[in-house]
Amino acid sequence: MKAYIKSIVEYNNNKLSRSFAFFIQFLIVLSVITFSIETVPNLKPQTRVILNSIEIFCVTIFTIEYIARIYVADKKFKFIFSFFGLIDLFAILPFYLSFGVDLRSLRVLRMFRLFRLLKLVRYNKAMRHFTKAMLMAKEQIILFMAITLVLIYFAAVGIYYFENEAQPEHFSSIFDSLWWSIITLTTVGYGDVYPVTMGGRIFTFFILLIGLGIVAIPTGIISSSLTKVFDLTDDEE
Amino acid sequence: MKAYIKSIVEYNNNKLSRSFAFFIQFLIVLSVITFSIETVPNLKPQTRVILNSIEIFCVTIFTIEYIARIYVADKKFKFIFSFFGLIDLFAILPFYLSFGVDLRSLRVLRMFRLFRLLKLVRYNKAMRHFTKAMLMAKEQIILFMAITLVLIYFAAVGIYYFENEAQPEHFSSIFDSLWWSIITLTTVGYGDVYPVTMGGRIFTFFILLIGLGIVAIPTGIISSSLTKVFDLTDDEE
Amino acid sequence: MKAYIKSIVEYNNNKLSRSFAFFIQFLIVLSVITFSIETVPNLKPQTRVILNSIEIFCVTIFTIEYIARIYVADKKFKFIFSFFGLIDLFAILPFYLSFGVDLRSLRVLRMFRLFRLLKLVRYNKAMRHFTKAMLMAKEQIILFMAITLVLIYFAAVGIYYFENEAQPEHFSSIFDSLWWSIITLTTVGYGDVYPVTMGGRIFTFFILLIGLGIVAIPTGIISSSLTKVFDLTDDEE
Amino acid sequence: MKAYIKSIVEYNNNKLSRSFAFFIQFLIVLSVITFSIETVPNLKPQTRVILNSIEIFCVTIFTIEYIARIYVADKKFKFIFSFFGLIDLFAILPFYLSFGVDLRSLRVLRMFRLFRLLKLVRYNKAMRHFTKAMLMAKEQIILFMAITLVLIYFAAVGIYYFENEAQPEHFSSIFDSLWWSIITLTTVGYGDVYPVTMGGRIFTFFILLIGLGIVAIPTGIISSSLTKVFDLTDDEE
Repeated sequence: MKAYIKSIVEYNNNKLSRSFAFFIQFLIVLSVITFSIETVPNLKPQTRVILNSIEIFCVTIFTIEYIARIYVADKKFKFIFSFFGLIDLFAILPFYLSFGVDLRSLRVLRMFRLFRLLKLVRYNKAMRHFTKAMLMAKEQIILFMAITLVLIYFAAVGIYYFENEAQPEHFSSIFDSLWWSIITLTTVGYGDVYPVTMGGRIFTFFILLIGLGIVAIPTGIISSSLTKVFDLTDDEE
Repeated sequence: MKAYIKSIVEYNNNKLSRSFAFFIQFLIVLSVITFSIETVPNLKPQTRVILNSIEIFCVTIFTIEYIARIYVADKKFKFIFSFFGLIDLFAILPFYLSFGVDLRSLRVLRMFRLFRLLKLVRYNKAMRHFTKAMLMAKEQIILFMAITLVLIYFAAVGIYYFENEAQPEHFSSIFDSLWWSIITLTTVGYGDVYPVTMGGRIFTFFILLIGLGIVAIPTGIISSSLTKVFDLTDDEE
Repeated sequence: MKAYIKSIVEYNNNKLSRSFAFFIQFLIVLSVITFSIETVPNLKPQTRVILNSIEIFCVTIFTIEYIARIYVADKKFKFIFSFFGLIDLFAILPFYLSFGVDLRSLRVLRMFRLFRLLKLVRYNKAMRHFTKAMLMAKEQIILFMAITLVLIYFAAVGIYYFENEAQPEHFSSIFDSLWWSIITLTTVGYGDVYPVTMGGRIFTFFILLIGLGIVAIPTGIISSSLTKVFDLTDDEE
Repeated sequence: MKAYIKSIVEYNNNKLSRSFAFFIQFLIVLSVITFSIETVPNLKPQTRVILNSIEIFCVTIFTIEYIARIYVADKKFKFIFSFFGLIDLFAILPFYLSFGVDLRSLRVLRMFRLFRLLKLVRYNKAMRHFTKAMLMAKEQIILFMAITLVLIYFAAVGIYYFENEAQPEHFSSIFDSLWWSIITLTTVGYGDVYPVTMGGRIFTFFILLIGLGIVAIPTGIISSSLTKVFDLTDDEE
């Protein structure tokens, strides 16, 4: 019996276990869609009932899956406190906790249901590769993130100096200028804050010329690290 | 006779067949320009007459080309249901169907005339290479598109949590937040929706720092796959 | 005498010729700055006089340089109709033509003074490399520019279909939609036109996910071609 | 005694010196945060007192560090006029100068406190790598920055020609057009200035198609240079 369940939930090499994996993934996506629809304002009561039923169904299956995984694990405690064990627990916990709490905390708890998306990592090859790549390049990413942050900060101080007097409502402090700085250097450019003084514009001109190359570095590191991981795993398979 | 027509429409190795290919490409572009001009409001009746004449001329030639291609094909059914056979059919079908339908459906049918642009794939080397590259990297693109979608969804849930109370008209549900999420993470940044709360801005700050590298991955995959295809085909030629 | 002048204007290997090259570059930049200042509205009459004097001085030197280059050329006609010969001519022509024309045409003629910037190509290594790289990858750039244009056109037709009824003033025809299409797919996102309907937003969502990778291809081709040119020339030197 | 101090401030190979380095880095970040909070308007007097105390504490430590570094240096003058010696001096100078000057100049002096951030270069590996990469690719970066500037200038002149008459308030001179040019070609796109004429929009269309690849070149150079530096240093270690 135990060996049979194990073959379904743990290995991914027979037809039944593949169907099971696909079913769980389908429930994760369904559960996320349900969560999204719940945020739509002025839902009809009938819709709420349907959404609740789907949620109860998903949690039931996830709970059974969680118990099954503990049951078949050789070292039960090790599984419970492993990355995937905790993810599986956090995916169902908000539902059970929501009975005992007031409505305000409920809102935060509902957010935690998103942990379910992380369950996809177990099944999705790309996510596994991506996690690996991030860990591999961790040190580099942190180092260059530091440079990016210093640049963003420099830009914020500069624009504060130029624009503070002309637009005290938009550049009231360096913290406000930081908002302009990140939105400009990532080239999002919403247009809610932008320099209007001659000095501020010339400063932006040079910051953009120099800055874009620097902000793009972490992006480049992630991409190249990912390519390496993909090549390595392709060789293994 | 059949061999002569075949030499014109199928092979691309003599002067006449090259002229034919160029003529068809010219008609495709002409037909697309005609289609665009038709959408301009308040056209003069004379203009409409000219546009219609061009359209009838193009469809006539495309129909003759389609029949000729069926005629010269060794396996006629195989050609009709092949990718290019279907494209050739869809390129002329809207015109013939438009006689039997009411005006409202006509609008959708007109859109289908754009299928003609896909006819260019047969003649354009870059498009052939591009199609090949997309097929080659299909699995990777789908996998990382999944990561991108998860990130966009996470960002949407986060911003919904921070901004929903402050701007219920812009962030009314997670579906509305998804619009903000895609426009921000692709760095388009129209400026129609943007966070105004302190929490929402700090969240955006970190999402942008981390997210840009992830959203750029599918772009990188397409580019590198394309380079590979180009190098391979260059060697063959 | 001729050999002496030739050593100054043509070769770049002695102190005098290097000073001459630097002087001409300085005049090009000075002339461009003068041109820019002339466009500032409500200039004082004294400023106009100074700007005119600088312009006359620059043109005089450029004319002397042009005549000297013809004088020292072994094949005079070949030089006059060469790329650099024509650039040198167009750099001074607007000035001389401006005496015989009315004020309206003058405005266009003034623009032609910008041809002087192209004179920099002769002196600037990066510009020479860049021109070389563009010629090397010419075919590829044209091919993929075609794909980019098809994508931009597809996006324009799609958004026209979704948004035309809701915002007839912004998406009045496919030509108007093309403006939205280029501004969105290059991620500029001014925010002057953006979709407001549910359908238009979902369409934009998918176009952005797919499209960014495609629009970035010509960029990638130019960069990689440039790297090749740089490596080749570095080896030669 | 001198050898002992030297082992703490100069070498980074024992526990005490590593703690010292970490402590200095902490003070740099603390000092920068203090500086940022000081710009928030309407601070309470108590907050100001706390911020001032922190500032005095930081400067005291930095001064002791500076004197210690001079004391242990073998060639004292060489250290004082070295890059790091000057940075260390500029990090504390504004504080001491602020006693003797009026309030207006104080504002500029306060900005100079940001030089402290450069002190991080001594301790941060990524910053060292980055500085090295910039020096290595210095020539290339300058050369292609020139091309980028020429392109931005061309775009500015073009848009001035098309939009000046229609929007004299936004495109009043080429200097104003340059602002549009940098914001558009870096794809920031605030939306404060954008073309409205047919000609201006078609010009923008082509400038964007061609220009994005060119503006991205310096970014590419910095990235590839950085990768080289990283690989070189990894081999050495």
